[in-house]
Amino acid sequence: MATQERLWIDPAEVERYVLELAQHGGDGTGVRRLVYSPEWVAAQDLVARWCEEAGMEVRRDAVGNVWGRLEGTEGGPSIATGSHIDSQNPGGRYDGALGVIAGILAVRAVRERYGRPRRTIEVVSLCEEESSRFPSAAFWGSRAITGRSTPEDAENMRGYGGETMAEAMRAVGLDPARIPEARRNDIETWIELHVEQGPILEQAGLPVAIVNGLPSIRHYVVRVDGRSDHAGAMPMDLRRDPMAGAAEMISGVIGTALQMGRPAVTTVGRMLVEPNFPAIVPERVTFTIDARHADPAQRDRLYAAHEALLREVAERRGLNVSWEITADLPPCPADPDLVRLLEEVAAEQGIPTMTMPSGAVHDTQRMAEIAKVAMIFVQSKDGRSHTPAEYTAPEHAAAGIQVLAAALHRLAY
Amino acid sequence: MATQERLWIDPAEVERYVLELAQHGGDGTGVRRLVYSPEWVAAQDLVARWCEEAGMEVRRDAVGNVWGRLEGTEGGPSIATGSHIDSQNPGGRYDGALGVIAGILAVRAVRERYGRPRRTIEVVSLCEEESSRFPSAAFWGSRAITGRSTPEDAENMRGYGGETMAEAMRAVGLDPARIPEARRNDIETWIELHVEQGPILEQAGLPVAIVNGLPSIRHYVVRVDGRSDHAGAMPMDLRRDPMAGAAEMISGVIGTALQMGRPAVTTVGRMLVEPNFPAIVPERVTFTIDARHADPAQRDRLYAAHEALLREVAERRGLNVSWEITADLPPCPADPDLVRLLEEVAAEQGIPTMTMPSGAVHDTQRMAEIAKVAMIFVQSKDGRSHTPAEYTAPEHAAAGIQVLAAALHRLAY
Repeated sequence: MATQERLWIDPAEVERYVLELAQHGGDGTGVRRLVYSPEWVAAQDLVARWCEEAGMEVRRDAVGNVWGRLEGTEGGPSIATGSHIDSQNPGGRYDGALGVIAGILAVRAVRERYGRPRRTIEVVSLCEEESSRFPSAAFWGSRAITGRSTPEDAENMRGYGGETMAEAMRAVGLDPARIPEARRNDIETWIELHVEQGPILEQAGLPVAIVNGLPSIRHYVVRVDGRSDHAGAMPMDLRRDPMAGAAEMISGVIGTALQMGRPAVTTVGRMLVEPNFPAIVPERVTFTIDARHADPAQRDRLYAAHEALLREVAERRGLNVSWEITADLPPCPADPDLVRLLEEVAAEQGIPTMTMPSGAVHDTQRMAEIAKVAMIFVQSKDGRSHTPAEYTAPEHAAAGIQVLAAALHRLAY
Repeated sequence: MATQERLWIDPAEVERYVLELAQHGGDGTGVRRLVYSPEWVAAQDLVARWCEEAGMEVRRDAVGNVWGRLEGTEGGPSIATGSHIDSQNPGGRYDGALGVIAGILAVRAVRERYGRPRRTIEVVSLCEEESSRFPSAAFWGSRAITGRSTPEDAENMRGYGGETMAEAMRAVGLDPARIPEARRNDIETWIELHVEQGPILEQAGLPVAIVNGLPSIRHYVVRVDGRSDHAGAMPMDLRRDPMAGAAEMISGVIGTALQMGRPAVTTVGRMLVEPNFPAIVPERVTFTIDARHADPAQRDRLYAAHEALLREVAERRGLNVSWEITADLPPCPADPDLVRLLEEVAAEQGIPTMTMPSGAVHDTQRMAEIAKVAMIFVQSKDGRSHTPAEYTAPEHAAAGIQVLAAALHRLAY
């Protein structure tokens, strides 16, 4: 059903929801809310209560995703929205959390205005999108929904603290053996609202973007092995110093992405040095590379350049280099019809938007395996994200939620 | 008293002492023996027992250094030898420990052959040379002896685990208020035997070196502050990435020392990244620089080049750089007469030696403030040190101890 009616989302209420959720795991202006932690459990309980207050039936699936459901009169596959409430360690209040709040407030808005929908609408609060507790568990919740998380994964994946995913699940009353039950094959359409996490909307002076695609991403864990020596007694020319090699590799991969130009991005965000003492040439340096590009051919060029550089530097310096690819997602175009629908309803609601690709990856990339997908971005202040400095103005958040609500109305009524 | 008599040190007995001491804190072929740990206490107890067995009176000073004393008939200032038994974490069995064992076995050898000396001989087992538990406490034991460790230091210095030096001392029954009592002003001559920790002796095919000087050393803790951003959503050209800056700085300082040539050495052995997650451009990268040179003018050139590079990279990349200098020792020449005496007694004993500067710093550098000093190096296999792979052949160790014993005889009888 098309409508020209304006839907109203109260910015003050959005802000109230954001701040209330941020109390669980709150850390200054940010949050530390790792999957299956006490803070995360309390936050999921709050989400469940909000879903009920918005008129939805609530259930929790086998990995702990919280689902709110507004049953449609016609049944059939669902229109779903949502995001994740786990955070970086520490992260901001908005990354993920705003998409869950958006789903709840959008459903409440359309239900209050239009009553029961024809099609079923669902809101989901997903778990461990960030892989901030379990480094190899990115998109754990949405992977379970698409059938790509397994009980074996849960037993094998270890957290930064050494515990297994299965142990962490059991500690909050979840049975890893039941993970396959989280799978869904009855979601037709998925729309995720998220903060942009970059500076494009702010620079354009716009509150909202419609996202027409998500990037490819590859995560490498690179290990450089050299020879530990005394910092004074071993001459420079006889060393096999993995720190010297790693520094050259890191300069090189970052320089490659910079030179290739937007939207290529390469980040080295994590490094471990062994044994990590000032007066010892390290034995081993391990670092991550996060490399992304939206274009498949350019992506292949970026990855190949990185790998060639790692090999060349190691060879020249007498070091051993090896790597593991811990995440590898292809680029993910959004559904063109859904993008057009979002552009139309935004225009009907009088909300100025642009259409852009996402630089970040999202649960949407996983949901695309089972549903038609698109995303709504809202402006991020100074482009900051994955930090407690992250901020989105309530007016911008409310404008995005208004677009989401209008889209749900168009799709489900 | 000059002598042409050969002294005999049994290599098998040296090896037995090394292996027995290595049982305290043993970790594979290495040791983890941090100052004031239970392993360290047990090792010092063993050293005390060995000193008694060698005919020395034993006492422990206010910081826990263990002293064995063979009183001379004439009294007066002492001829002292020894080293440290704390280790890197993990380190090898020989670094430091061999110098303590050498002192005990050398004193036992001259006492058994020549009886009571004219001059007093002392052997000391020092504590926290490595700063492997307390990063700013390098040479803690020898600094106390030279009057440079204070009760205030003990209250302020914190270990890698967060505890203060004072707390760690009290836990093993030492009173930090009494630290000044450890000071000595009655040591005339200091000779330290140590493993070379580098490849020079092995390449020369020699068991022993006489050390004619020790390098200047400066330790920097460099902090590079940038801006944490999302690894996908923030374009490369808008980032202020401290990892990119740190990598360029590290490549630069290591390259500078390599280009300057021997004996310049610069090491980056320790790095901390915040927040240290793969998908987050770091907010801050902190790393150490250990820079050494034996020549004062070249040293100044090395330090100035490092500091200029840090500033230039930070400026160009829009990063903030700051540093703290946590250790700064001038070069330390050995006493020329003492070096000549060691060369002579080695020749008398039929032990081939070379004379060379040390690349590493040692407690000797501190003892030089109150005594005439020199060192004896013994060959290190493959030049490895500060690693469990460290090894010195018993024959080479025994040859070095023979030189030490002959020197003690020449000086004290």
